[in-house]
Amino acid sequence: MHVKPVLRPCETRRVEGYTFSTTVRVRFADTDAQGIAHNASYLVWFEVARVEYLREHAGGYQALRDRGFEALVLESFCRYLVPTRFDDVLHVHARCVDLRGARFRFEYLIVRDDDAIVADGWTQHACVDAGTLRPTRVPDWLGAAIRSVESSSASSSQSSSSRLSS
Amino acid sequence: MHVKPVLRPCETRRVEGYTFSTTVRVRFADTDAQGIAHNASYLVWFEVARVEYLREHAGGYQALRDRGFEALVLESFCRYLVPTRFDDVLHVHARCVDLRGARFRFEYLIVRDDDAIVADGWTQHACVDAGTLRPTRVPDWLGAAIRSVESSSASSSQSSSSRLSS
Amino acid sequence: MHVKPVLRPCETRRVEGYTFSTTVRVRFADTDAQGIAHNASYLVWFEVARVEYLREHAGGYQALRDRGFEALVLESFCRYLVPTRFDDVLHVHARCVDLRGARFRFEYLIVRDDDAIVADGWTQHACVDAGTLRPTRVPDWLGAAIRSVESSSASSSQSSSSRLSS
Amino acid sequence: MHVKPVLRPCETRRVEGYTFSTTVRVRFADTDAQGIAHNASYLVWFEVARVEYLREHAGGYQALRDRGFEALVLESFCRYLVPTRFDDVLHVHARCVDLRGARFRFEYLIVRDDDAIVADGWTQHACVDAGTLRPTRVPDWLGAAIRSVESSSASSSQSSSSRLSS
Repeated sequence: MHVKPVLRPCETRRVEGYTFSTTVRVRFADTDAQGIAHNASYLVWFEVARVEYLREHAGGYQALRDRGFEALVLESFCRYLVPTRFDDVLHVHARCVDLRGARFRFEYLIVRDDDAIVADGWTQHACVDAGTLRPTRVPDWLGAAIRSVESSSASSSQSSSSRLSS
Repeated sequence: MHVKPVLRPCETRRVEGYTFSTTVRVRFADTDAQGIAHNASYLVWFEVARVEYLREHAGGYQALRDRGFEALVLESFCRYLVPTRFDDVLHVHARCVDLRGARFRFEYLIVRDDDAIVADGWTQHACVDAGTLRPTRVPDWLGAAIRSVESSSASSSQSSSSRLSS
Repeated sequence: MHVKPVLRPCETRRVEGYTFSTTVRVRFADTDAQGIAHNASYLVWFEVARVEYLREHAGGYQALRDRGFEALVLESFCRYLVPTRFDDVLHVHARCVDLRGARFRFEYLIVRDDDAIVADGWTQHACVDAGTLRPTRVPDWLGAAIRSVESSSASSSQSSSSRLSS
Repeated sequence: MHVKPVLRPCETRRVEGYTFSTTVRVRFADTDAQGIAHNASYLVWFEVARVEYLREHAGGYQALRDRGFEALVLESFCRYLVPTRFDDVLHVHARCVDLRGARFRFEYLIVRDDDAIVADGWTQHACVDAGTLRPTRVPDWLGAAIRSVESSSASSSQSSSSRLSS
């Protein structure tokens, strides 16, 4: 159930291969009668990180919606390594990889304030037309923005991608 | 915290003044680290009861949406009388009262399988145009359907309404 | 449905009668198929504000739990004044009033970043023994901390309290 | 985004390889501003199916908790094949596979009332001591109950398991 913290405390909380992170705190509503955060809450935190990533790098998810696109979730995976509890401070690292046609993938690493890695995972997405929900190519401006962000960490992201999905 | 069960066990679970009830079971995801159902879950159960009420009596909430209406929640009130726990079976009684113009109110009484009254409350609504979210008169067919259902229990509902909102 | 913003933009977002506020952003998971935040999400935001209030003023809710207390929610009320949408930034103002014996009440005012008042409400609580969930007097250290915070805004809170519950 | 329904309408909704299913209806609170069920809701429906499975076959999850065990979620995976909407009726098929030591896995297939396969996925679990959250061997009575249920569909479950996790 428990893994040893493998990260050194650092000011920026930057994790190798990740250029972005956002912080959430475990809400009481996130917990369940086991006294720990419910497994579905992690998917919400992944989403919060995606939204913040797109805000920082691509004008925001609402900008995408305003232009008639939505991003559907095709697949989600989460590995729960250490239970988290009410009031824990979590740094959700996110990166966007494998952008091709209508598809792209986000990978996540959740690190608690004490540097314990508490979860990792990924979500696979399709860009769709907001009206029909049919797949449509990721718009060029968004693809370019994402590629620009992730180009610096491309090699580490690829190796991690194969690790997580194997 | 605890009230004595005041209802007699009965097959139909009909409660005075209520013509309708639906059943939910407390999900693990509904609970929190106090080991009991989270306070926000009750508003979701109220909604489940509203939806089932409209299904039984008025062609369903989706029928309302299909005709270009939505029902917004203007106010919600819940009184938590007895904590409920994972796997509890709850009978959510609902009735629609005070239908006037664009406005109407639902009242609820949640009774556990052992006949303990675990919560009551109400939600105040406005019928709105789905596009603009502006108030619009409740359509005649819906008003007629609701009045027909509730006419039999009108007197008891009025007295309860004043009790709850005082 | 819509009220005019009555607050002037200001740096501190301090609202008359409230000494505390915290900020949440409407998550995509908070929204529903009406395109607006779901009514139950507001109770979660109220809780986030309570938790942050207790962190700032009374050593945190976890400190209360660590000493064998829980705070149950006895009643909740929310008035939804303006629909809120994905990505809206909300300032949740909170204050603790009517502390007597085991009971206390939190009042809330939710103000959007554009100064629209989008919701207000309150939650009534009982301090309970964590093991038995039976009411127990609010510990002196907590009562003293809360009274100290709220003494400056006592008069305005009382008038607001009667307004909200009438 | 869309797969053709591959199942024939049938009264029992039994799907090859699955001995158990339970039914949920998409709640309004499950939907998001895309007008479809939120991705995290599927993990809650998986949980509802697990709980009902254990009720039918092993005395219920609460029985497990009453004896001092909890089942933690170690991993979750969901593949979203067809968007589901408010009021959709979903049959959540579940089976328990790969029971070894403290570990076991649930697999799921969600079929809508019109026989469209809308999602599949799995959750990996560890049986833990409720007090310490440390892994502990699945109790013999539970292991025996699960093996008895699943022995009839063992071959199909294995092939599906490799498909889903590849």
